[in-house]
Amino acid sequence: MGGVGGARFLVGLKALLSGPEHEITAVVNTGDDVWMHGLRICPDLDTCMYTLGGGIDAERGWGRAGETWAVKEELAAYGAEPTWFGLGDRDVATHLIRTRMLNAGYPLSAVTEALCDRWQPGVRLLPMSDDRVETHVVVETDGQTRAIHFQEWWVRHRAALAARSFASVGADKAAPAPGVLDAIAGADAVLLAPSNPVVSVGTILAVPGLREALRKTEADVVGLSPIVGGKPLRGMADACLTAIGVETSAQAVGRYYGSRKTSDTGILDAWLVHTGDRCDVPGVAVRAVPLLMSDVDATAEMARVALEMAGIDVG
Amino acid sequence: MGGVGGARFLVGLKALLSGPEHEITAVVNTGDDVWMHGLRICPDLDTCMYTLGGGIDAERGWGRAGETWAVKEELAAYGAEPTWFGLGDRDVATHLIRTRMLNAGYPLSAVTEALCDRWQPGVRLLPMSDDRVETHVVVETDGQTRAIHFQEWWVRHRAALAARSFASVGADKAAPAPGVLDAIAGADAVLLAPSNPVVSVGTILAVPGLREALRKTEADVVGLSPIVGGKPLRGMADACLTAIGVETSAQAVGRYYGSRKTSDTGILDAWLVHTGDRCDVPGVAVRAVPLLMSDVDATAEMARVALEMAGIDVG
Repeated sequence: MGGVGGARFLVGLKALLSGPEHEITAVVNTGDDVWMHGLRICPDLDTCMYTLGGGIDAERGWGRAGETWAVKEELAAYGAEPTWFGLGDRDVATHLIRTRMLNAGYPLSAVTEALCDRWQPGVRLLPMSDDRVETHVVVETDGQTRAIHFQEWWVRHRAALAARSFASVGADKAAPAPGVLDAIAGADAVLLAPSNPVVSVGTILAVPGLREALRKTEADVVGLSPIVGGKPLRGMADACLTAIGVETSAQAVGRYYGSRKTSDTGILDAWLVHTGDRCDVPGVAVRAVPLLMSDVDATAEMARVALEMAGIDVG
Repeated sequence: MGGVGGARFLVGLKALLSGPEHEITAVVNTGDDVWMHGLRICPDLDTCMYTLGGGIDAERGWGRAGETWAVKEELAAYGAEPTWFGLGDRDVATHLIRTRMLNAGYPLSAVTEALCDRWQPGVRLLPMSDDRVETHVVVETDGQTRAIHFQEWWVRHRAALAARSFASVGADKAAPAPGVLDAIAGADAVLLAPSNPVVSVGTILAVPGLREALRKTEADVVGLSPIVGGKPLRGMADACLTAIGVETSAQAVGRYYGSRKTSDTGILDAWLVHTGDRCDVPGVAVRAVPLLMSDVDATAEMARVALEMAGIDVG
């Protein structure tokens, strides 16, 4: 899963599966990760950690509640680039600890576990990989084609520069983080959160072994559409889909993921779309329910239906 | 020179020598420098830079005016040690830039110059050395002898643990930073600021070549006593002097520095002490004037007298 959408989905799932007999493992995209001002920043992992741990700025959807911005302002006063990234003071402490641990040789999965010691997210958060994978975006500006980091495209340009394509730099040599393949293989159900299909779920699938694990697991794989009524639930997934030639519709995303049974590369057994979205995905069971994640109860109900489609009845 | 005392002295000296025909170079102690939370922190350089550049918290004497402490509080919430160091949010931006540049291979002197681009201190600030030199303090606790970093002794223990001795770790292999020896050799006058004689001036003198440069320069070397009426003007210099067996008096410090003329290791031509402090240092001209640095004018007047003793008349 990715950041904001994935994190909100996890809150609902955690509320649904609150008993001690349940265990939730989230495999989180790290393609948005970036080095900035000498700090290693993991936006999706942090959004999940802060959201589940009660530290998130709920209105903004990312970063810390009650955040201040002295470090960012001072870096700008020094003329240190980039100035467009939202680097909050409280957030900096997280990045300092992460950076120090990474520089000392700890893998990202161990760092994430250490940070979660404080936040107690109640969900095991695993980076998709301990290896550096970064999503770059190929854009054309002033007749020049160049690749920029996903964060620059997403945060600085608000995805307004037309993307030609995406590259998961480093993905070909990356390995799934410890625990990822086991979690998928041993799961009772695998859910694809309503995250960005291209730069969140797509990047995770670019890590060698991940797609195969989803195709091989004995659990059913159920996806939840991030596209509702032809629009992304949040974020700018439409710009990403357009770049890879996929229509912004629940049906097109479902077909992009594909069927485990009838396609050679597909990953879905079932696909959950929003009430009223017409959808047919060959070889995939489709069901329509409200997918707006408007509050925790509504999100838990989405998760309940998704698990039900995977043959898991949680009442 | 060192931090707070040295910085205040520089403000007076700069006010005195405000014309474009004057050039001031300050050789600053870096023995207090420390790695903390993955950041390289240079307390004395920063105190000089912030003070001269108008960014200092004047009341506290160190750190930034209007400082906030979110990063520090969050690091403590993660349980990240140490928690006793005053790491301000604004200050963190300085350390981030420094750390990033050092990790990229720039020497500390180049980093300092880059940071001063913003602050325009009006004085050339040179670290004593680009090499890592750290003052450690040998203390005895619970019957155990151990060496701790100067910052831990100074900030955490407020110099209250009896110091057995000081070690300038790395000094034996350190070289003066570019410009330091030339500045001393080419100076019209060399002033020793009223800084801590042991862990500021003493550490600078521990860098091979520094003491020799002071002994060889054609300029007169004039020291200003940091001990006034048998007490340090600020800080805890008495604890340092006691540790090395030197009495806390202007005369004892003057004798500790020694005469260039009549001693084989001495560095002073002249020694300026506070009005009323009795002082005799063999081979060194002594004069007594108010040394309280109570405001810029008073400090400028101290500097004027010191320069006069070096044969430089600035009116």
